[in-house]
Order: sequence, then structure tokens, then C-alpha cells
Amino acid sequence: MEDKNHKQEERIRKQLAFSVEIDKEKEIGRQTYLASGSRKEDDAEHAWHMAIMAYLLREHANEKIDILRTIMMILTHDLVEVYAGDTYAYDEEGKKSQKQRELAAADKLYPILPEDQAEEMRALWDEFEAGQTPEAKFAHAMDNLQPMILNVASDGISWTEKDVYLQQVLDRNACTHEGSEILWDYAVDKYLRSSVEKKWLIASEEEKKAL
Amino acid sequence: MEDKNHKQEERIRKQLAFSVEIDKEKEIGRQTYLASGSRKEDDAEHAWHMAIMAYLLREHANEKIDILRTIMMILTHDLVEVYAGDTYAYDEEGKKSQKQRELAAADKLYPILPEDQAEEMRALWDEFEAGQTPEAKFAHAMDNLQPMILNVASDGISWTEKDVYLQQVLDRNACTHEGSEILWDYAVDKYLRSSVEKKWLIASEEEKKAL
Repeated sequence: MEDKNHKQEERIRKQLAFSVEIDKEKEIGRQTYLASGSRKEDDAEHAWHMAIMAYLLREHANEKIDILRTIMMILTHDLVEVYAGDTYAYDEEGKKSQKQRELAAADKLYPILPEDQAEEMRALWDEFEAGQTPEAKFAHAMDNLQPMILNVASDGISWTEKDVYLQQVLDRNACTHEGSEILWDYAVDKYLRSSVEKKWLIASEEEKKAL
Repeated sequence: MEDKNHKQEERIRKQLAFSVEIDKEKEIGRQTYLASGSRKEDDAEHAWHMAIMAYLLREHANEKIDILRTIMMILTHDLVEVYAGDTYAYDEEGKKSQKQRELAAADKLYPILPEDQAEEMRALWDEFEAGQTPEAKFAHAMDNLQPMILNVASDGISWTEKDVYLQQVLDRNACTHEGSEILWDYAVDKYLRSSVEKKWLIASEEEKKAL
């Protein structure tokens, strides 16, 4: 009994130590402005937003998804950034060292948890990164759709501030349709066309027509 | 087909309009400092943090819980604050009008969603507020434990800054044990005793002994 209590206490200690450590994700800034345009959001806010969107939009996933698994993947997909920092989607230099920095961060962060949970949470992150399962594909679709709705709501400032090209957005979203054809079509039709029209995204006449 | 497409597009429009509206939750400040003490957190960060904690700590719930339901309840439990604002746990004046303000907010917010989802999400909030189901009890336990781990990690500034009494924390946590006896015992033993010892919480000698 004594031993069982000690083991349980040790589990809780590790679970709460991890919970305190991940608080740092609130201090990892992203490049996306809030809908109001008042400031940029952080990783924790981004993950919270994506998780609710995933739940509400799950009916539009291409394949049947386990929504709990998808939500946990979303909530934790950026945790490695507490050590590795955020890499802006269109920062080509930073992206070169991103994978290596994030792998080192995962090796440091997850072992704070009890072993079984460390393995589970690490596997979930690996699955997200690989992007092959229906859940990972839908999570990636949300990871791209969430900033897009904010960019449009905030009159495109995240894009205009950095002179983003339509082609960069299309490249970033190359796999969004693998999560949801329906949502990707909607995004192109309702968001991207008008964003190009309003000059929030840079595009040639040809690219406009091809959209 | 035309009609089916139109209906689907209308659903997505409502789901995304709601998704943009709830972005305001990131601008609702709370009284709890981040673990680093650098600033206070906001509602969206709080909900994200609680959701991960709930998943990791669910084995300690008194009763078997549906973890997806619990997580969705947690992620959305403060949404009404986008219109009603945050009411500090120890603001006795603000708490008098809180329920009325929040009910009006719920009546305004949830109908942005398609009707079936509006009903589902509203029912989830009502369930959280009522605090009677195993899921709602565990969600409330997380709602109290999450700021406590941050308060302790940040050397009690959220408490000392406002001269909070131990008794206020105990009152606020009156139902935490209904979600998890194990976690409440742990919190008293590892967090509250030392917080009183360090004078982060105000308590009489008698109250200290009774803890």
C-alpha cells in the first residue's frame, strides 16, 4: 500500500512537472495576428483554436477520423517549440534546421512524463509530423486553415506585412486537401480568391486565373 | 445536388463564423500569472492548458469519465466570456451579476453555429455549469488545479498581489475533491501547505494546523 501510494505520487509529480513545463508554449509567438489585429497569437492559443475547429469541422474530413486522437495531436503538436522555438512558415533559412531542433526538443521534453505517457505523447507527435494517417492529415488541414481564417478576418495583415505570395500559401497548403477536399475548396473559393483580389497576397495575372 | 452543396456551404460558413468569433477569447485576460511570472494568461491559454492536463491526469478521476466530452467541455467552458468578460474568482461584487451576464452571452454566441451544433455546444456548457456529471466534476477540478500549479510555479504572485486568504482558496476548491480525491489530497499536501508556510496565502495558526 505504501509502495503503491509512493508510485502514484511519483506519477502525479511527473505529470504535473510536465504540465508546468509546457506552460512555456504560451510564450512562443507566432506570425499570425488575432482576428481583431490587436496583436499576434501564441502557440497555445493557436492549438486551442485549432482543436475546437477540428471538433466542429470533423464532418468534412475526407476519411473517418478518431476525433479524440486528432484533438490530442492538435493540442500537443507544437509542444517541441518550448525548446525549439517557432519557425515561421515562410522562413526558408530557419526551416533548414527546424527538424533537427525539434527532434532534440522532443527527446528532452517528453521524458518528463511517466514512461508510458512519454511514449504515447511522443508517438502522437511523430504521427503528426509524418502526416500519413487520416487524423494527422486533418490536423494539418486545421493547422493551415486556422491561420487563414485569422489572416482574412484581420484584413490580411499577416500576409501584407511580410509580402507573402499566393504561391507560398498554395505551397504551404499543398496537402490541405488530403485532410478535407471540401474545406480546401471552400478556402480557395471564399478566402484565397478575394485575398488576391484585395492585394493581400501577391500574384501574377496568370496565377489569379489559375486559382 | 445544387441544394445539397448550398446547405453544406452554409454549414461551413456558420462553423467558420463561430470559429472567428471565439478568437476573442484570446483577449479575455485572467488573474493567473504564467509559470515564468512574465505576464498573466488569457482564457484560451488556460483552456488549452487544462485540456492537456485533463488528458494526462484522467486516471486519477474519482469516476470513469468520457475524456473527449471532458476535453470539449474544458476547451469551451469559458467561451461565454467573449461577451461577458472574465470574473475573478475572488471578486465578490462581479460574481453577483456573473450568471446573468454569462447566460445572455451564451444566448448570443451559440446560435452562430448550425442549429444541431449550437444545441450540442450549449448543452456542454450547461453541463459544465451544473457541475453534476463525472465529466463536469473533473473539468471543474482541472479549472482549479491549473491555476494552482501556475501560482506555485510563479512563487505565489497571483495570490500575494491580491492578499488572498487560504480560506478563499479552500472555498473555491470546495468541490475539487468531487472530481478527484487523489489530486485534491496531492494539492493540499504538496502545494497548499507549503504556500501557507511561505506566506503566499494568508492563514491563522489554527487554519494552518487544520490543513
